[in-house]
Amino acid sequence: MGKQWVYGFGGGKTEGRADMRNLLGGKGANLAEMASLGLPVPPGFTITTEVCTHFYENGQTYPAELKAQVAQARTAMEKHLGMAFGDVKKPLLVSVRSGARASMPGMMDTVLNLGLNDDTVKGLAVASGDERFAWDSYRRFIQMYGDVVLEVPHHDFEDILERQKRDDGAEQDNDLSADSLKAVVAAYKALVEKELGRPFPMDPEEQLWGAIGAVFKSWMTPRAITYRRIHDIPEEWGTAVNVQAMVFGNMGDDCATGVAFTRDPSTGKNYFYGEYLINAQGEDVVAGIRTPRPLEDMERTMPDVFRQLCDVRVTLEKHYRDMQDIEFTVQRGKLYMLQTRTGKRTTAAALKIAVDMAQEKLIGEKEAVLRIDPQSLDQLLHPTLDPAAHKKIIAKGLPASPGAASGIAVFTADEAEDKAKGGVKVILCRRETSPEDIHGMHAAAGILTSRGGMTSHAAVVARGMGRPCVAGAGTLQIDAAEKTMRIGDHVIREGDTITIDGGTGEVMLGAVTTIEPTLSGDFATIMGWADAARRMKVRANAETPLDARAARAFGAEGIGLCRTEHRFFDPARIQHVREMIFATNSHARRDALAKLRPAQRGDFADLFKIMEGLPVTIRLLDPPLHEFLPQGEDDLKTFAAAAGIGVDQVKKRLIELHESNPMLGHRGCRLGITYPEIYEMQARAIFEAAAMVAVEPEIMIPLIATAKELQILKKLVDETAQAVFAETGRAVAYTTGTMIELPRAALMADDIATEAAFFSFGTNDLTQTTLGLSRDDSGAFMPDYVRQGIFARDPFATLDTEGVGQLMRIAAEKGRRARPGLKLGICGEHGGDPASVAFCETIGLDYVSCSPFRVPIARLAAAQATIQAGDLKSLKQQKREAA
Amino acid sequence: MGKQWVYGFGGGKTEGRADMRNLLGGKGANLAEMASLGLPVPPGFTITTEVCTHFYENGQTYPAELKAQVAQARTAMEKHLGMAFGDVKKPLLVSVRSGARASMPGMMDTVLNLGLNDDTVKGLAVASGDERFAWDSYRRFIQMYGDVVLEVPHHDFEDILERQKRDDGAEQDNDLSADSLKAVVAAYKALVEKELGRPFPMDPEEQLWGAIGAVFKSWMTPRAITYRRIHDIPEEWGTAVNVQAMVFGNMGDDCATGVAFTRDPSTGKNYFYGEYLINAQGEDVVAGIRTPRPLEDMERTMPDVFRQLCDVRVTLEKHYRDMQDIEFTVQRGKLYMLQTRTGKRTTAAALKIAVDMAQEKLIGEKEAVLRIDPQSLDQLLHPTLDPAAHKKIIAKGLPASPGAASGIAVFTADEAEDKAKGGVKVILCRRETSPEDIHGMHAAAGILTSRGGMTSHAAVVARGMGRPCVAGAGTLQIDAAEKTMRIGDHVIREGDTITIDGGTGEVMLGAVTTIEPTLSGDFATIMGWADAARRMKVRANAETPLDARAARAFGAEGIGLCRTEHRFFDPARIQHVREMIFATNSHARRDALAKLRPAQRGDFADLFKIMEGLPVTIRLLDPPLHEFLPQGEDDLKTFAAAAGIGVDQVKKRLIELHESNPMLGHRGCRLGITYPEIYEMQARAIFEAAAMVAVEPEIMIPLIATAKELQILKKLVDETAQAVFAETGRAVAYTTGTMIELPRAALMADDIATEAAFFSFGTNDLTQTTLGLSRDDSGAFMPDYVRQGIFARDPFATLDTEGVGQLMRIAAEKGRRARPGLKLGICGEHGGDPASVAFCETIGLDYVSCSPFRVPIARLAAAQATIQAGDLKSLKQQKREAA
Repeated sequence: MGKQWVYGFGGGKTEGRADMRNLLGGKGANLAEMASLGLPVPPGFTITTEVCTHFYENGQTYPAELKAQVAQARTAMEKHLGMAFGDVKKPLLVSVRSGARASMPGMMDTVLNLGLNDDTVKGLAVASGDERFAWDSYRRFIQMYGDVVLEVPHHDFEDILERQKRDDGAEQDNDLSADSLKAVVAAYKALVEKELGRPFPMDPEEQLWGAIGAVFKSWMTPRAITYRRIHDIPEEWGTAVNVQAMVFGNMGDDCATGVAFTRDPSTGKNYFYGEYLINAQGEDVVAGIRTPRPLEDMERTMPDVFRQLCDVRVTLEKHYRDMQDIEFTVQRGKLYMLQTRTGKRTTAAALKIAVDMAQEKLIGEKEAVLRIDPQSLDQLLHPTLDPAAHKKIIAKGLPASPGAASGIAVFTADEAEDKAKGGVKVILCRRETSPEDIHGMHAAAGILTSRGGMTSHAAVVARGMGRPCVAGAGTLQIDAAEKTMRIGDHVIREGDTITIDGGTGEVMLGAVTTIEPTLSGDFATIMGWADAARRMKVRANAETPLDARAARAFGAEGIGLCRTEHRFFDPARIQHVREMIFATNSHARRDALAKLRPAQRGDFADLFKIMEGLPVTIRLLDPPLHEFLPQGEDDLKTFAAAAGIGVDQVKKRLIELHESNPMLGHRGCRLGITYPEIYEMQARAIFEAAAMVAVEPEIMIPLIATAKELQILKKLVDETAQAVFAETGRAVAYTTGTMIELPRAALMADDIATEAAFFSFGTNDLTQTTLGLSRDDSGAFMPDYVRQGIFARDPFATLDTEGVGQLMRIAAEKGRRARPGLKLGICGEHGGDPASVAFCETIGLDYVSCSPFRVPIARLAAAQATIQAGDLKSLKQQKREAA
Repeated sequence: MGKQWVYGFGGGKTEGRADMRNLLGGKGANLAEMASLGLPVPPGFTITTEVCTHFYENGQTYPAELKAQVAQARTAMEKHLGMAFGDVKKPLLVSVRSGARASMPGMMDTVLNLGLNDDTVKGLAVASGDERFAWDSYRRFIQMYGDVVLEVPHHDFEDILERQKRDDGAEQDNDLSADSLKAVVAAYKALVEKELGRPFPMDPEEQLWGAIGAVFKSWMTPRAITYRRIHDIPEEWGTAVNVQAMVFGNMGDDCATGVAFTRDPSTGKNYFYGEYLINAQGEDVVAGIRTPRPLEDMERTMPDVFRQLCDVRVTLEKHYRDMQDIEFTVQRGKLYMLQTRTGKRTTAAALKIAVDMAQEKLIGEKEAVLRIDPQSLDQLLHPTLDPAAHKKIIAKGLPASPGAASGIAVFTADEAEDKAKGGVKVILCRRETSPEDIHGMHAAAGILTSRGGMTSHAAVVARGMGRPCVAGAGTLQIDAAEKTMRIGDHVIREGDTITIDGGTGEVMLGAVTTIEPTLSGDFATIMGWADAARRMKVRANAETPLDARAARAFGAEGIGLCRTEHRFFDPARIQHVREMIFATNSHARRDALAKLRPAQRGDFADLFKIMEGLPVTIRLLDPPLHEFLPQGEDDLKTFAAAAGIGVDQVKKRLIELHESNPMLGHRGCRLGITYPEIYEMQARAIFEAAAMVAVEPEIMIPLIATAKELQILKKLVDETAQAVFAETGRAVAYTTGTMIELPRAALMADDIATEAAFFSFGTNDLTQTTLGLSRDDSGAFMPDYVRQGIFARDPFATLDTEGVGQLMRIAAEKGRRARPGLKLGICGEHGGDPASVAFCETIGLDYVSCSPFRVPIARLAAAQATIQAGDLKSLKQQKREAA
């Protein structure tokens, strides 16, 4: 008997099911499922995806048994329909379509009306009572088959058709008479014979195998390969081929064709939303030549069919438990279902449908939570461009921080602040941003850079602030000195209005209308269900009161990362910071630090108040000191004068502090080791603030590579704590822990855990060091890397679970073995990426922390991860019990 | 009964042994061993190191049983000698000395002549028949005890003594009469009573416990702690205390004291080498007031004693099977042995002694191999400073590349080359060096930098070239523009002569005589035995014919790392390299590369010829492209003119190529992925050269993070190979492999091994990424790190086996599991470091590769590692069999 390569459907006997999608493809599986549900599906059969795999693994040949199995399935169709291939009276006509596991719209080939030839066309004319229809069908078939299977250039057919229309004075294809169409058919056949050196195949059997082969071959066309790469679809999945009896929506006014969604895909409303065309074929709806009618119209024009369709809607939703996107054809008053699949929808619709279906008891609350793509919540939290507006796109960069914004172009942070104070909306345009630009970024409505990637400074800060950002728009030449931005010959000057869309990366000339976001009750409902389901806590990375308030508004359950140095750039503080750096001894350093301490204490007290007892993790100074140094001649002179140091000395120190690879240089805990005064001041500020507000601070030491570093610095923190407690007369509970952001720290986690109450995975730096990849510099080759499939996704956006994740798993296991109660979290950018959050669940982290605007995404992603982990567990349980 | 805290020796019953060094300390264990051998050791006892540990773990208190055990041991001594503590007629006098597991010369306290008081001094005078001697001994005892135990300032005693000498008109201490010494004793006692408020202790028992406590306390003095930190001696080892009957070499002309080595420690000659002083105490030899006589003299002055001593020499060498460093005292014609220990020696002596002893069948050949410190071979391969020469040291840096050199200071590579062409020896002085300085470094006799560590560019290149180098001499301010170097107020100008010692890091003013190295036959003999013993192969990192020839001369068995880009800086090539970088499309890039190919082919052919069929691993282009770009305005203009490009365009490209962290940037295989033409050219040059010379090249792809990168580039290499084979009509066997230099590569080694025939651990970069530590920038904090014990040694010099080593082990295991025949090697700087080579043996690498001048070190270290691994194995075997 051999393997089953062919599965029939709709012909009395249906062998497939919806869950056989991997074998039958999406279309084939759902046709079989609908047939099993008793819905009116034209009979046919599916050739499995395994045939495709076999085809490519065996030099484009078929399994030996295939021919016989196809013949058998065809015979079954013929018997069921009382029609036959090549039968002059009752010719069986079929469509041959691809159908992969994942939808690849428009990527692969289709042949309709297969089975027509010089004889059967006459039979079709008689059977349909419409000679014009029959010859038009034949004409379409030769054109499609000639193009797809025989590879005769498409435009040669078009030329013949156009010539005929011109000769006839016809405007539309439909205006051609049966005789004209016969002439077209004759010309088409001559064209094929001339091109191929042999006549167009008249044998339906030969036609069928030609079409099957063409569909399989279309799996490997360049455009299909490209599409799969972009959408992460493995080549080895292959495509199935569906052969199905043709039904015609274009045989007269009792015929129609249409598409519908079982609910409104824009709003999610429980309303039967669709369009149809009377006397038309499916492709006419797509082509947009005639304007389709709204579906509710059908209640009047074809009441019986409409009633049937409404029943189908209910059946499908009950069965699939999700909104369906369906295609149907009405042939002579009879309804046929040609496709059903889960319908795409907007985020707002997705929320409404999930909530409604849960309330209709179609699905459970956990399933409702699983229905929402966490990433899509971004749409709800930021302004979006009016889809109807006209856009003049001039450049495209990376969609670095979501939301759309219009404003005038400015080229320095100071200008951004000045103009914004005057109430003008500005877009800050920089080659790249640095910590010195923070005030300008904050003042701007949006940020645009010509360099840097998804995790460049601009991108990270913009996401943290919730500002739209387009980063790395490489075709722009931004010149801050000239205050211009060039794209080819076009020059944008300061004051010119531009618009950016941080969700797509587009840069547009002029103002484009934006739509403000609104958060529906459905959003709150889903988030409530998500919060009830999730195991991991969600915190935010925040250091300003603004950020902290935003974090709480978005549901953060604490601060996972407060970067203490973030506010060193405040004009009132930077001078002291710089004096601290220029101090030549520990005494002078202490003096400068003493001036900074009240401000730091104030920062922490503000945060603690806002967080009202929720956990707050404070990271001690991390970046290399030279980040704080004066840049440029003016800044340098101002600083030197204020500090009473010679300009030459300042320059000398700048050279001394220069590093070849600052990422791997004198930063993080290394600063604490060499300048303990700095960490002591910060610890003191934390404890003094904590004594004022009820909080249990978590003090985090960055860039730990060895247990000894942590031991030394923990001792410093503990001694400082005791000193402050003695002074204030009030002891505060606190913990000390570390970032795990170096491979060595992960590998030595058992050692380090003996000193640390918690680990927070700093996956930005851990990715940089594990992959030896600089975030700031990877833009030069990352596109090539993604194009060639070396990285499926940018590892700074989505965790490299194989490499970086392996280290995290090692660290989590070793750390917990050495210290059972060890608290584990993540505070890198990945903490707000759904796929990365899912990984964090698998290694049992206690919380994820991300920028405030991503907190809802993380809450939902964490909930989904918990639910899926539970599902997996119960699946394993079932398997064990079954075994 | 309790634990045994006290071990007696020499008093009829000896309880210790030489292998009880951990318990009894070096001195105590060897005194016991000598006593057991029947050698004349004054009786005494050792209080174990465990008492020291107990002392510090229990608030400076002793174990309960100690008092009784000490009393018992003392009684045994008294019985044996017929003397007693405090006995006026026959007073027992003892010395109390520290004795730790590892020698800590001069670090801890000693008390001699203990047991003397106002009564026993009289007994000593009678017994010795020398009143002056007795009171001098008492005077010395009070001074020593007062200083060490009672903490009365040393100089107060000296003042009293000096005053007495002045009053007496005495020049030497010896000139003081017995009466004067009595007056000194009286004054000493008064001083003690004034300082302490109580008299000097007269009770010998009290004296004894005071001295024991002082020795234990001296374990924790700051200087002892510092010494231990520098020499990696753990605090928990503790010290033992040795209490031993005094013998006197200063009782008359039939008395003497001396030190000797059983062989000449400078040359290794089998000759009894030593010095002695008649009528003197041990400290007089050390003090150097009188000139000691050579030992052979004793044959004449004390023939009986000399004969005894010669017997002792033979006994000790036979017993210890190594050259011994001994101390002895002759009291009234009777020889007493006071110490024996393994003698320190020069490298030349170590070689000769090991070879001689093996030939004398005292030790086996493998043991001879284990006797040589591999690191010490450096002494033999490079010029060293004449130890007798006067040195004016002005600065100290890191001993970055061994050897000493004198020459005139020059400040640019071009000057170095110019001057050297004129036959002048130069020292190239730079703040730091870059690849552009290579020609100057090559021309220089030595290299001096003010920045950078042990693995900075200067250090690595200098070691590779065998040039002496002092790196990171931070107190020097080098100004290349001014052509000066300042240290404090001192200015060194171009043309001033300086000397550097790359073995110590010292920088000296003026010329210091150097001694040229000579390689003895003993060296060849030991290396032959080492080669016979070792399992791992030793290769060299080399790319020039000069390096390759040196490598072979030093016994390299192949090239483990040929850096293809090393010769891109040749004046004839750099223009093409830069044109390649400036090419705006693949076509122009190919044109520039085509011009480079013949030169590269020539490089490879030369190497292959020199290596005569030995394996050669060639690494494709690794450093970021900007390293090759013009630096400075002039260079830039010259290049622009020659290339026919505008200066502005060159500058623009320089900005484009700038990277924040070049170490983690667009380099290594990333260049091969984005510019496949480059790797294709290099592969082509390799295969074309291989077709001309018989060789099986190993092509190595650097900076691999994913298997996919290697897959893509291996395909490129294979296709290029096929193309060249077709053209030349000659196929060449070759393999393709990868560097493992990123944590991710180590973690994914199983995946990567499916594509790689070999792994070579690039531990320089692997250390940088695993520890997140830039070699070039770590100088700013590494001293603090080593001082605080965070790193025992610079991880760029000696492998961090815990962290980096863990990754190497993971990679080796995963790699071999996925591909059993996988060849494993190391080509980082660590390949020439003995401790790191030992680690490589434990994870089963096939070879180590290092710079040519370190090949002998690696050969010896590899042999020792194999032997020790074998010893460990047979030890385990024995334990298994015993169990």
